[in-house]
This record gives sequence, C-alpha cells and structure tokens, in this order.
Amino acid sequence: MSKKFVYMFSEGNASMKNLLGGKGANLAEMTLLGMPIPQGFIVSTEACNDYYAKARVIDAEIIKQIDKGIVDLEKITGKKFGDEQNPLLVSVRSGARASMPGMMDTVLNLGMNDLSVEALAIKSNNPKFAYDSYRRFIQMFSDVVKGIEKSHFERILDKIKESKGVTADMDLTVDDFKEVLATFKNIYKDEIGEEFPQDPRTQLLESITAVFSSWNNHRANVYRRMHDIPSSWGTAVNVQMMVFGNLGDTSGTGVAFTRNPATGESKIYGEYLINAQGEDVVAGIRTPKTISTLQDDMPVVYEEFISIANKLEKHYKDMQDMEFTIEDKKLYILQTRNGKRTAPAALRIAVELVEEKMITEEEAIMKVDPKQLDQLLHPAFDEKSLADAKIVAKGLPASPGAATGKIYFSAEDAKIAKEQRNEIVILVRLETSPEDIEGMVASNGILTVRGGMTSHAAVVARGMGKCCVAGCGDIKIDEVKKTLTADGKVYKEGEYISLNGTTGNVYGEKIKTVEPEISGHFAILMSWADKVRTLNIRTNADTPKDASRAVEFGAEGIGLTRTEHMFFNEDRIFQMRKMILSSSEAERRDALEKLLPMQREDFIGIYEAMEERPVTIRLLDPPLHEFLPNESDSKVALSKDMGISLDTLEEKIESLHEFNPMMGHRGCRLAVTFPEIAEMQTKAIIEAALYVTKEKGFKIKPEIMIPLAGDEKEFKYVKDIVVRIADKIINDSETKIEYLVGTMIEIPRAALTADKIAQEAEFFSFGTNDLTQMTFGFSRDDAGNFLDDYYDKKIYESDPFARLDQEGVGQLIKMAVEKGKTTRPDIKLGICGEHGGDPSSIDFCYRVGLHYVSCSPFRVPIARLAAAQSVLINK
Amino acid sequence: MSKKFVYMFSEGNASMKNLLGGKGANLAEMTLLGMPIPQGFIVSTEACNDYYAKARVIDAEIIKQIDKGIVDLEKITGKKFGDEQNPLLVSVRSGARASMPGMMDTVLNLGMNDLSVEALAIKSNNPKFAYDSYRRFIQMFSDVVKGIEKSHFERILDKIKESKGVTADMDLTVDDFKEVLATFKNIYKDEIGEEFPQDPRTQLLESITAVFSSWNNHRANVYRRMHDIPSSWGTAVNVQMMVFGNLGDTSGTGVAFTRNPATGESKIYGEYLINAQGEDVVAGIRTPKTISTLQDDMPVVYEEFISIANKLEKHYKDMQDMEFTIEDKKLYILQTRNGKRTAPAALRIAVELVEEKMITEEEAIMKVDPKQLDQLLHPAFDEKSLADAKIVAKGLPASPGAATGKIYFSAEDAKIAKEQRNEIVILVRLETSPEDIEGMVASNGILTVRGGMTSHAAVVARGMGKCCVAGCGDIKIDEVKKTLTADGKVYKEGEYISLNGTTGNVYGEKIKTVEPEISGHFAILMSWADKVRTLNIRTNADTPKDASRAVEFGAEGIGLTRTEHMFFNEDRIFQMRKMILSSSEAERRDALEKLLPMQREDFIGIYEAMEERPVTIRLLDPPLHEFLPNESDSKVALSKDMGISLDTLEEKIESLHEFNPMMGHRGCRLAVTFPEIAEMQTKAIIEAALYVTKEKGFKIKPEIMIPLAGDEKEFKYVKDIVVRIADKIINDSETKIEYLVGTMIEIPRAALTADKIAQEAEFFSFGTNDLTQMTFGFSRDDAGNFLDDYYDKKIYESDPFARLDQEGVGQLIKMAVEKGKTTRPDIKLGICGEHGGDPSSIDFCYRVGLHYVSCSPFRVPIARLAAAQSVLINK
Repeated sequence: MSKKFVYMFSEGNASMKNLLGGKGANLAEMTLLGMPIPQGFIVSTEACNDYYAKARVIDAEIIKQIDKGIVDLEKITGKKFGDEQNPLLVSVRSGARASMPGMMDTVLNLGMNDLSVEALAIKSNNPKFAYDSYRRFIQMFSDVVKGIEKSHFERILDKIKESKGVTADMDLTVDDFKEVLATFKNIYKDEIGEEFPQDPRTQLLESITAVFSSWNNHRANVYRRMHDIPSSWGTAVNVQMMVFGNLGDTSGTGVAFTRNPATGESKIYGEYLINAQGEDVVAGIRTPKTISTLQDDMPVVYEEFISIANKLEKHYKDMQDMEFTIEDKKLYILQTRNGKRTAPAALRIAVELVEEKMITEEEAIMKVDPKQLDQLLHPAFDEKSLADAKIVAKGLPASPGAATGKIYFSAEDAKIAKEQRNEIVILVRLETSPEDIEGMVASNGILTVRGGMTSHAAVVARGMGKCCVAGCGDIKIDEVKKTLTADGKVYKEGEYISLNGTTGNVYGEKIKTVEPEISGHFAILMSWADKVRTLNIRTNADTPKDASRAVEFGAEGIGLTRTEHMFFNEDRIFQMRKMILSSSEAERRDALEKLLPMQREDFIGIYEAMEERPVTIRLLDPPLHEFLPNESDSKVALSKDMGISLDTLEEKIESLHEFNPMMGHRGCRLAVTFPEIAEMQTKAIIEAALYVTKEKGFKIKPEIMIPLAGDEKEFKYVKDIVVRIADKIINDSETKIEYLVGTMIEIPRAALTADKIAQEAEFFSFGTNDLTQMTFGFSRDDAGNFLDDYYDKKIYESDPFARLDQEGVGQLIKMAVEKGKTTRPDIKLGICGEHGGDPSSIDFCYRVGLHYVSCSPFRVPIARLAAAQSVLINK
Repeated sequence: MSKKFVYMFSEGNASMKNLLGGKGANLAEMTLLGMPIPQGFIVSTEACNDYYAKARVIDAEIIKQIDKGIVDLEKITGKKFGDEQNPLLVSVRSGARASMPGMMDTVLNLGMNDLSVEALAIKSNNPKFAYDSYRRFIQMFSDVVKGIEKSHFERILDKIKESKGVTADMDLTVDDFKEVLATFKNIYKDEIGEEFPQDPRTQLLESITAVFSSWNNHRANVYRRMHDIPSSWGTAVNVQMMVFGNLGDTSGTGVAFTRNPATGESKIYGEYLINAQGEDVVAGIRTPKTISTLQDDMPVVYEEFISIANKLEKHYKDMQDMEFTIEDKKLYILQTRNGKRTAPAALRIAVELVEEKMITEEEAIMKVDPKQLDQLLHPAFDEKSLADAKIVAKGLPASPGAATGKIYFSAEDAKIAKEQRNEIVILVRLETSPEDIEGMVASNGILTVRGGMTSHAAVVARGMGKCCVAGCGDIKIDEVKKTLTADGKVYKEGEYISLNGTTGNVYGEKIKTVEPEISGHFAILMSWADKVRTLNIRTNADTPKDASRAVEFGAEGIGLTRTEHMFFNEDRIFQMRKMILSSSEAERRDALEKLLPMQREDFIGIYEAMEERPVTIRLLDPPLHEFLPNESDSKVALSKDMGISLDTLEEKIESLHEFNPMMGHRGCRLAVTFPEIAEMQTKAIIEAALYVTKEKGFKIKPEIMIPLAGDEKEFKYVKDIVVRIADKIINDSETKIEYLVGTMIEIPRAALTADKIAQEAEFFSFGTNDLTQMTFGFSRDDAGNFLDDYYDKKIYESDPFARLDQEGVGQLIKMAVEKGKTTRPDIKLGICGEHGGDPSSIDFCYRVGLHYVSCSPFRVPIARLAAAQSVLINK
C-alpha cells in the first residue's frame, strides 16, 4: 500500500502535529470535538519533504491522494469543484509544526473561475460579493503562485474607484467589478503569457506547490533561525472549504484570544468585522469592533462562540488564539492555536492556570518560553513611540535592551554630559577600548562601528547589562567634527538616537523607553522551576555589583569571574601596562606588586557579595596587547613614567602585535611565560578568601580556573604555581581554607585529552565560545562576514555561537565529560560560555551530565526556567 | 627483592640499551666478547627516572647498589677506592639510550685525593702524571658537579706557566704542580665554602647526581627536541676504571671510525695522541696523528686495534665509532657505538654493507635517517668557510638550504642586480607580498623581519626550494636608506650576508656554498625503499617546474596544488584584485573570465608534467585580503583601472580586514559566498584535463579538493557547484574523463563529523597544518612567541607543527579515518600538511591506514625512505 500523504480533517487529531502541522492537527481535533469547522483535508509535512527530496516536484502518488481528497470533500460539502450551480471553493493555507505567522503563503477563494463566479452570484444572491471574491482570488493567486506584484492590481482598483468617485470597493457596481475582472485577467496574461487558469484542479496543485515553496522563502528561513525551527520539519498544507464573512451584515469574521495576550488577564479579548473576509481584518482599512460588542450584534452567535472558546481553552489547557467566520449568522471556527503572548502575560497565564487547577505546576513551567524572560529584565521601547520610528542603520545585537540618548563621540564628553548636565547619553565610538570604561558607565547605550560580538564594547556592555549595538558598519563617524552619518543624514553631537541591543537596530531619533516591571507571577513561576531543576545556575560576574544583581536574579554561585576586566579601570590600566611592557621579571614583579592590593579588594568585594556561594575565578586570559594604549596621550604618559622613549614604547607595543590574537599568547600561555602573573593573582584570590573568612565569617572556598589549557603538562605547570603560592599563604595564616584548581575546556585538544587533564584538574568549565571557534575554525568576530551566506544557503540553520552545535562541539563536550570521569569520577562540571544562557544548550548540558551552567546575570532567570524544562522534557 | 638499578659490565649486553644506555650496553657487550675493556658498572636509566620522580634525590636503595658496585669493581681490578697503595680511579660518564654527544657531563680521574695521588705517583713512577691527574680531577669536579667556572682554574695554570716561562703543562715541575694543586683547592674552598672532598664515595655520589641532573640541562633539552628523544628515557651513568693514556710515550689515546664518516669509504679513519688523555684530543691543543701512523709507532697495538675494529663492525653490522686508550702499550677500548655520519656516507655505507653481504637490503633501509637526506638536496655551506663565520642574527628556519649573496631591499632592485649585473642576491624585506615574487625568483635566499613559518615568504620559498629565514626580529632594516642592522653593524645595499634556512642563522659575510651531489648509492637505497613501502608518496606542487622536480625525486602524484599561488604572478594579481574588489557578481564574473585561460594553462602544464599520475587540485583557500596591494603604486593603478577613487579602494580594502585571518573568510567559505570563483576554477581544471587527455593522450583524472569544510552541508553545497559545472563541460565534450571531489580535513569539526562528510566526499586529505592550529588553539605565526617557553619548561618536547601530535591531533585523524570508512569504505585517504614529510608523522600515517602522504618536492626522498622504514618497524 502506498504511504498516506493526505488526511481528511476527520482522520486526524491534535497529537498528529508533526505530520499534519499545528493548524491541521487542531482543525482535526476540533472536528473530533464536534465543533463547527468548515471541512477539508491536509497534505502532510511528509509530502512537503518529499517535494524537496524530489527537486521540487510533487509526486504522482501525492497528486492522486489530493484528487481523492477533493472528491471526499465534495461528498462532505455537497459542492463540486468548478461547478456551475454549487461550486466548491477552498482556501489553501500553510501549517507547520510550529506556528510561523505570516511567513508562508495562503490562497483564498480557490475554485473561482468564469463559471463558478456566476453560480456564486446567483447562489449568494449577492453578485458583487461573487465578483469581489473572484477578483481577490485572481490577485492572490497571481501574487502568491505566480509572483506578480500586488501593486499591479491595486493600481487598477484604485484607478477605477477614483474614476467612479467612490472610496470603498463595495461601492463599485457589478459592471465595475466585471471591468476590473477583465483587466485583472489581462494583467495575468501579459505577465505570465497565458490565460488565467480556469481549471480548479490546476489552481489547487499550483497553489499547493506555492505553499511548499514558501517554506523555503527568505523570511521563513530567517524566522526559523530566530525560533530554532529546523527546515527538515516541512510544512503541511490545509485545503479547507471556504466560508464567507462578507455575505452581508449577518456575516463577519474575527480573531479572539481566550485571555489577554498582552497582560494575561483572564478575559476574552478580540475583535471582528461585519461583512468582511479575514484579510480585511489584517489590512486594517476598517476599524474592527471589540469582541464584547458581538454580544449586542448577534447574541446567539456570541454565546456559542464564548462556549466554544471556553471549551477549547479547557481542552488545550492553554490560552487559545482563534479565528472565526460568521456566514449568514452561522458561526465557523477556522483555526485555534495556543496564543502567542508577551512575557508578563505568559507568566500570569501560566500561574493562573495552575490556580484555576487547569494545569499542574510542571505544566506551567513548560508553558513559558525561557527566552521570553529577557524582555522582562531590560528596558524596552514604548510600543507607540516605536511605531513611527525609522531604522537608519543595523549593527550586531551585542547586548540586549533598548536605549535612547544624546550622542557623544568620546568617553570624556559622554561623562561630562552625564555628570555635569545630567543628560541621557549614547556613546558612539569607532570601537571602544579600556580607556572608555567611564564613558560607558555614564551612557545608556553604546554604539560602535567596528568590532564583533566579543569586542570590548560588547563584552563590557553585557557585563553591565547595558544596551549595545556593535560592528555597525552602516554608519560613519567623524571624530573630529563629532558627527555621525546614517542613512544619508548627519547627526551632530548632542542629537538623539536610539538603539535596540536585542535586534541591532539603530533609530535616528528619540524613542520613549519603558523600564521592566517584574510581577509576583515571575517569582512564583521561578520558585516552581527551582523545585524541579537539578542543574545549578551560576553567573558570569566580574564585579560585586554584577554579582549582587545575579544573586537577586537567583544565581547560586559565580561560574566565571574574568579577572582581566578589573584591569580596565583607569587607576589600574596604567600599572597593568607597565607590567606588560616591563623588560625584566623584576620590573614586572614590581608592577604586579602594585596591582595586588587592588585585585585583592576586587575579590573581597565579590566574595562578600556572594556570601558562601561558590566563586570561580579565572586567571588572566586575553592577549596582553589588548591592554595597551591606542591613544597618543596615554602613550606619552606611559613612556614618561617608564622612563623610556616614545619610540621604544611603540616598538614594544608593535612587538606584541599578533596575526591571530585569538590563537595567540593568551590564557594559561601567559602564566607559562610569566609565572609571576599567576602568582600575584593566586595571592590576591587566597588572601581575599582568608580575609573574608576571618572577618566576615563566611566560609570561602575559591575555585581557581586556569584558562585555555590544551595539555596536561601545561595545566600542571600552572597549577603547580597556584598550589605552591596558595598553600604557602594558607599555611602561614591562622585561618584555614580550602580551594579548588580546575580548567576551562575551550580548546579541542583539551577535550581530546580530558582524561589526562582530569588527573590534575579538579573541575572542568566548558568555555564554549572559544571551543566553538576552534572546532569550527572560524573566529566569532570574523564569521559575521560570511555566516549570513550560510544561513541563506541553508548550510547552517542557527548561529553556533548562540546555540550550541551539539553535533560537533557537543561531541567534544561529551567526550571530555566521559574521559574526565574515567580519571576523576567526582570531577565538577560546568559551562561558562554564552551558551550557558541558551535554553537548547542548557538542555544539552543537562543531558550530558554537567552540574551547573553559568551565564550573564540577566540570563539567570532564563537558565533557571530552561533547566527546569530540561528535567521535564527528559523525564 | 629490591629492583636492580646497578649492573656490572659483565651482567649486561647490547640488547639492554633502554636500561643501560647505549654506551653501557656496548661496554657490556664488548666485555662479553672478551675485548680489553676497563671494567666498571652501570647505574641504570631507571635510577635516573627514579631520581627525577623523587624530586632529584637518589634513593637509598640505589646508593646501596652503587656501594656494592664499587666493592665488586675493587675485587675485579684489585684496586681500592682511596687506597694509599693501589687506589681505584674511575670515570663517571653519562650514557643515554640514544647518543647525545657532548650534551651531558663527564668526570674523569675520580677517586683522587691527597693520599691516592701520592700512591699513583709512586706506582706509576711518574709523579707529574699523578699530580696532573689530580689537578684535572679537581678542575672537572668543580666545574661539572659544583658549577665553578673552568676559567678560574685555567687562569691559575696560565699564570704559573707564564711565571715559569713554559708553555706546556708537562713542562712544569712537580713542585709547580703541588703549588697548582694547593691553589686549586683554595679556589674550591672559596667558592663552595668547604674543603675539596677527600672521600671517593662522596665524590662518586655527587658526580652521579651531577650526571643525572645534566639530563635536564638546557642544551640537552634542545638536543632532544631536535632529535625527537623523549625526556622520559633518562640517562644511565657509567662508572668505569680509569686507564691512562698519559703515562708516557708508550701510552696514548684516540678515536677511530671503521669507515670514513664523511664519505663512507670503507677504510679505517681516525686519530690519536701519544701521552694524552681523552680530553686533550678534544681540546685540540696538540695536533693528533692519523690512525695509520700508529702502525709505525706501535705495530702490535695497531694490529690488535684493527682486528678489534673489524670484529666490532661485523658484530654490530654497522660502521663503529670507537674510543681507545693505550696504557703503557696495553690497548683498552673505552667505547664503541654506531658512528654518526654525513648523508652521503650513510648511503654509501648502507649500500656497501649490503654488497659486502653483512646486512640485508631491509637492514640497509633502517640504517639511514630519512631526515638526513635533506642535506643531500640543498646547497650547504662549505665547512671550512663556515668555520670562521659569525652568526649575527637568528630567525625562523623557514626553508632549508644555504645561501650567500648581496643584499637588496626591494624586489625590483634584486631583479635588476640579478638580471642586469648577474649578481648573486639575497632579498631582504620587512615581509614579502605577492608583489615580490619576481624578486624572490631572482634571489638565492630570502630574509624577512616579520612573519612566521607560514608567511608568504616561507611558503613561496619552500615551494621554490629556495633558502629562507623568516621572522628575523634580530635585525632592523631601513628601506629608505637601504640598510640592514644586525648585531650592531650596519650592512648597506650590495654587501654580502649569508643565510642558513635549515637553522635560521644569519651570517654577516660571504660564505662559500657547495651544491648538492647525488650519488648512485642514493638511487640504489631508494629503489630498495620503494620495494618495501606501501604508502604512496605524492608532492605538494603548484607549478609544472615543481611538479617535474618532484617526479625526479620519485613523487607518484600531486597531493596538493595550491591554486592561489598561481595568482601571485604579476600579470594575474591585477585581475585577481579586480575580482576581489568587484562590487557586483557581474563585475566579479568578468574578472574571473579573464583569469580562466591563465588558470587553465597552469593546469595543462601540471597535468603534462605529471603525465598520468594523480593530481589533487585545491580550490582557492586564503583569505582574499592576502591578494590585495600594500604599496601605493599598485593601489593607484588598480583604482584607475577599476574607475574608482583611491579612497573608495582603500575603504574596500579596509572592509576586508579580519581580526583573525586564519579563522576568517577563507577556504570553501569563499566558494559559499562567491560560487562563481569555484565555477571558474572547476572550468579550468576540467577543460585543462579534457585538453591534455585529448591532445596528449594522457588519461587525466583530476582530484578536486574543497578546502576547510567543517560540515557536510557546507561541503555538499560547494561540491554541487563543482559537479554541475564539471558534468556540463564533460557532457558537452567529445572526450570523456572522470574526476573525484573530496575535501581537506583541517578543522576539528570535519574530523568529528567525518562520517557525514564522507557520504559526499570521495577522498580526505588531512591538512595537518591547520588541524594542528585549530586543535591546539594557537596559530603557527604567533606560537613562536611562547613555544620556546614551553620547550624550556618541558611542557612540549617537540614542535607540533613539525612533528604530528599523535595524542591530540592524531586522535582526530584516527577518528576521521574510522568514521569516514563507516559511510564510504573505499574512501581515499592522504595527508598534505607539512607533516607529510616528517618521518615520525609518516609512521603515524602508515599505522592509521592512510593511502598516501604528500610533501614538498625536496622531502619526497625522505618520505620514500620513511615510508619503507614504517613497514619494517611495524612488521
């Protein structure tokens, strides 16, 4: 027997979403529930995949089954395709496993031709309606199936309306419509070179083909990438009998939610239009009425609808988003699905559904998309203000949130504007450097022309939870004239722009922002998640302030403190530079000695903020040249202080240049060359721990992390330095503390030799940013130049830096976990790359047996929820 | 029973080299053979490892066994340690598994003290000899064991000789010697703070400790790295009764080889000194006599020696390097070992030993170190001229061989000097770029200040087989003044320098070079190797000339043609640049169209040179900015031709800048973004193959290699382009050819997902340069800044770019081989990284089941021999 590709609505149910798509499965389910559904059939997602596998040809067997579907549908409806008396008209709609609103194509009124239009005119006793339906069909079919631009047709319609002196389509006469139809068919013939197809079967097969094709259009690809939907899912096609909301004043069409999708309030929410088809609601020419007024317009229909809505919500145990049509006082439900909602609404609905005993706490946990929580924690643009704003440039979404402010082109100017004039400020730079730190602190948002997702600006902004758009090559800046040029317009110092760090959009004006508000529902849902999850959630934090904020968000420890970020402050960078440019070990030790008390203070602050929660501190990681000055003032000052000539200084700086800094002298390689750096940092870590243990009574057990190791001897060399220094200090002290020494697994070779490294390392923390770079062989900062081509050509479906590549990088992680455990069964395992805040990556971490994930403070709630979902998914 | 750490000579034999070291095992073997060996015992290599494992302390058990060794030796010799009548004196020498001449420490005359010196004076009836021996011992012990500089003692000796008006030590009187001794002992006391040790047991244990320690001195570490000797082997220590060649005119000492180590001639070769100790031969104060004159001096001793020499050579089946001492007409053999020899000698000896039926062909194959063959193929410095030359700077040994010439600082000047004045030229540049190609061709050698082992200069020079020293930061150049400063001296344009591309040494003068001569022995040995080996040997070649040379050297195919190198020629780089800077696909296609015929000609030339041997052609690999002009002339010309402003051009160039070019937009990523480049190259490859097949009758089957793939979809995307274009051309042609499409495995992810990639790829070629970079996470160009620290600190024992890291990178290769075969059992497997010419890496490739290795033309003979040795080793 041949495989089944086509299902009547009565043959499916809600559980068949993968095969029938979300829309189709729900239509089938509602049919089962006896609801008033215009009947139809579904061409399955497998048919779509078959279409692509056969180089975009629909197999004969599938066509056979479609033909059979039509015959069956004709039987059910008593109508006939292309019939002169009682023609069957259908809609053809996409329907993927996950909802992708507006991404794919739809054809309505299919089955219309020169004969059936007459039949419909007579049958409906409404010729205008019939002709209007035909003209809509021609327009839609031409656009969707044949790619003829809609404007061709719109123009004709506008022209005839103008010549007749009317504004609404329905004010045209029947003859006008006939004229329109003739012109439309001519346009079709001119563009395509043949007559508009009169055979409904041809119309249908071409439309189904178009829907299949639309699965792979650009916007669908982009949407899938944004929502982690694999292209292998394919879309189903729903072929459904048309019902008409535009048959007169006893007809209408609308959309409604069982609860308010913006706030979550438990009250039906929606709108409808009398005498209209679905597309009219979307088009927004007429203002729809709110759903409650339907009670007055058509009380019986309203009651029926409310009853169905309640039934559906109870049945699906979730807020429903429904489309309905009233055809001459008869209600039809065209679609139901779990409604999209804002983050606050998602939380409220989930919590209230539990309170209403409709779902369990665990089900509630599964109802909120962890990624959505990001919205809750950052300022956002006010929707109304945003509506009219124009995007003037686009950069990389380097740090989420929204910001508006006056532009300044130097850190100094930004600082003065903020501190002396209390302005709200956006700092605009070619790229930022450590010297800009104070300007960044003073700003609401940061915009850079150069640099990628791991540039200084991006990393520091994320740490501060501050909005940043980086690498925005669309704009030009003139630092001398203090101007920014975007989209042809020049913005002067002090003029407003706005940034969306979540999308990378730059707007050339002031846009109102709204501060996030966190409701009690958030706390309730999080407490449920915490009960369920087994993964610990830590945070990446470099300052006491970040650490405290992360604890407020629920962090249970620090998974990564980047000790280098502390050196970027104005008072320290100078000593740091002296240390780097020292020409002898003695000179270097001298500069390090001056850095020691500062570094110790940093750690004291962090330990105090974290109380007894575990704190992982990574030894110095970036290549040293990152700390060196770019600006000539700084160079002059430095050369004077060091007593060397500017030339000598510049030569030294030049000698530290690297071809591929990402693969250069950094991480533990620095400690191998300059053990005294590791010594100073160990001293600071241990002395701070002793101080806090003694003075505050917290039991501090630092976790010292050696970065970038690729070999067990390399790791051991640095570990031996750490242990020697740490043990000496502890032995000399009256207070006794413990500490761990572990490593980041961020180089493929470390994963490959993890069994050996684990003989020495007491914990592994997967640094998946670097591990992804090395495993793929491309640098995050440079990949931006070609990754878009990879998405467009469907080589990659998601950004491996945002979503862990489980196949390649994940293989190395699994290997490292397994190998590590062979030599140290109780090894502590965590992740501190940015993937630690990504739900699908967190799920991988859970499955592979890590003990914790660590992410930026603002992602902690996301991680808590995602970790709980992992437990439930993998139950 | 305790483990045995100490062996009398009579307890060992030649097979115990790993335990007893080479010297010890041979002394034992000669003892077994009944040869006149001063007896002694060996402290094993395991004792050395135990010493390091116990933090540099000799275990009590080992000391016990040493004490027992002394007792046994006393019995054998009838002498006693520190005896007043018949004192036992011993030498203490290192002896590792592999010979490391001069790398470790030796103490002679141990056992001397204030009493035994008197006994020796009486017993030898030669007080001067006795005092001289004591003074030598004090000096050696102080130096080797206590680190007191020799010059302290030398100065005293010189002063006393001057004051006495004599020149030779032996012209001093007994009283003079007594005075010397007293002063020496005072120096010792001043430096160390205690008296010179009189107890021979103390002397012995301290000396053994010193020898163990010397295993880890800097020069030994460097030597081991150069010769791939693991530090885990440790050294043994030989404690042997002293015999004296300095007892008068019937005594002497010498060194001899059973065959000539320079030429291989089968004739004893050596020299000796009458009335001398071994160190005098080395010191070179007196000129030794050639061994044949010993026949006249002491005919009986000579006959005995010749007889022993012949016996030893037959016994060891190899040329022996022997040390001997004659003590009062009695011959002693102090050491024998397989002698070091030059490459021509190695070949001649191996071949002649077979002719003499002493060894088999397979044994002959094992006798030649493949790495030595490099010497045979490149010019070398004339040894005499080199002897006085001074190293003025050191850079990276980027391309082997020796070169001398007049320095020029621009390609243009170099070209003119060579072509118009027929000078021999060294091109000196900050770094080279494609624009320098013709200057490089005109030069004997290339010296650059910047850039690493994979810099443009290095890669191009290796391809040309031309000497190159790269990244020589020791020198400074002034391009305007046309001067080079090295070691404080300024060299002007036209002055001579010399380069050793094998060591990286730069000499500030003219040094005579000698061209390589290849003897018939080479061909014979190679033919034997070819019979044995199973690996095919291919070459990396980009031009017909390189290809032909490689075939002469025995290459059986091309494993890597880098198509980009062809674009560096003056007439092409211009079109290439236009292509890169095109602002539309049409413009790009236009430039590519102009490159097509040139590229086709390249391939025709290569196919013709290789006849029907397989040719692997890699599609464009480097980041495009590598092709862009640096010099303003070129930029101006280009902007004019392209009709854009210089500013616009520079902006474009700037926009192609990458942070980490090694991990940037390169390899197949270029073809993903610009499929038209892959199309053009496929066209050229296939059209050229059709042409040569048709016109020359060679059956050409190109192997098209897609570089840098990390994902099967990525590979397939580019493969589909190649196949589409190739099949179309082949179908349109009357001639029919086949071709393969495969990939380089050079990214960790490619190895991790090799099973999927092999579904599409018909061959894998391991690009171990990049694979090593990505697996270790450091770039070859930058690693130079820290790898020395890694060697010094014994984290790495060899350069992973020269010798394949079997543990990490090798694991990925094995994985890729195994995974690849699961989906394509007959997949063709090769290696084309530089490791393809390294013997230990070739052995790995053999064991892991590759089908071929590919290396630069000059390394083909090395690879042929190494591949044969692998078969024999793994038999």
